Amino acid sequence: MDRLDAPPDVVIRRLPLYVRSLRYLLEEGIHSVSSQELGERINVTAAQIRKDLSYFGEFGKQGIGYDVEKLLNQIERILGLTNRWPMVVVGLGYLGQAIARYEGFHTQGLQIVGLFDRDPDKVGRMVGNLPILDYTLLQTVISTHQARLAIIAVPAAHAQVVADVLIEAGIRAILNYAPVILQTPDDVWVRYIDPVAVMHSLTYYLAHEHQA
Amino acid sequence: MDRLDAPPDVVIRRLPLYVRSLRYLLEEGIHSVSSQELGERINVTAAQIRKDLSYFGEFGKQGIGYDVEKLLNQIERILGLTNRWPMVVVGLGYLGQAIARYEGFHTQGLQIVGLFDRDPDKVGRMVGNLPILDYTLLQTVISTHQARLAIIAVPAAHAQVVADVLIEAGIRAILNYAPVILQTPDDVWVRYIDPVAVMHSLTYYLAHEHQA
Repeated sequence: MDRLDAPPDVVIRRLPLYVRSLRYLLEEGIHSVSSQELGERINVTAAQIRKDLSYFGEFGKQGIGYDVEKLLNQIERILGLTNRWPMVVVGLGYLGQAIARYEGFHTQGLQIVGLFDRDPDKVGRMVGNLPILDYTLLQTVISTHQARLAIIAVPAAHAQVVADVLIEAGIRAILNYAPVILQTPDDVWVRYIDPVAVMHSLTYYLAHEHQA
Repeated sequence: MDRLDAPPDVVIRRLPLYVRSLRYLLEEGIHSVSSQELGERINVTAAQIRKDLSYFGEFGKQGIGYDVEKLLNQIERILGLTNRWPMVVVGLGYLGQAIARYEGFHTQGLQIVGLFDRDPDKVGRMVGNLPILDYTLLQTVISTHQARLAIIAVPAAHAQVVADVLIEAGIRAILNYAPVILQTPDDVWVRYIDPVAVMHSLTYYLAHEHQA
């Protein structure tokens, strides 16, 4: 196969939605899908679907559509989801506990292997089938499981220190729920989930819709 | 003032990060900031900052930087944050409860005015200072408060029905935590928060980093 152009990040971020939609199709007993139908489920155009997939080679046949299971397997392989990915969660407030209890992670290739909090009142309590551990055990758990993924759900003021410790311990990709931008080395990936920022971008549109 | 080009969505999504960083600066007692310094806090270039702000008029003076409080007030006005925005939360599982208890909303212009769940075991329980209400009260609460914002935190299989009911009741912008793409009218704004999808885009980079 010829060397293909590196796909832009926006395409990489869309691939997980393909995976999810293809899984739903399989559950519904649908084994073949057109780029049009798949696009409607993800809210993108058929042309965008074809363009996205073109970064990764040849998929589907003209006029026949995609074999759902085959396309699913291919995209899962592209995303690295043929492996299970161990991850740790730091910060077990209400949000961290909701994350720890969310079944969507382990059913989709992501296995929480450690829960950490620095509050002595929380350490030792069980959330689901895992105990909350003290920060002193971070390095050991991360090394033992060779975890490279972490979720940060601590207050904003502590997030940078937690990120530094995680990276020192071998974490290479972080999903940060704390409302603060992290300073990290170039070889560490950081994504943010920030519901207030999302809501504020929505208030913009509602506040301006009569001015268009 | 001349009519300016409509700012792209990516700029609108960045403005809330400006607001947050400017608030942190004020808390730190810093009253003037260069585009360089502001950019470092948001992880964008100084040129990007100047370009983003240029969509909304003239800010700051060459060589002096931005007056933090003034810029904060201006961006808050742009985002519509001089009003308080009532919103409702539907789905009070672990995630919905974490959302309901999160203080960041009401300290930043977003006021939760109603919590809804269809589970009779949950209805009537208090989360923070609000009771969980049955879906039958959605319309009344949304009308009374003239709420136009909603957060959906129900299971994927129920999200579309909930969205339909919310929109019927007057909701115009939805933050959807359920892992499913919603079908909505053109005049309704929908954003998604989907931690599994975010993690899957990170596994892509970790799985491929030795092939670059």
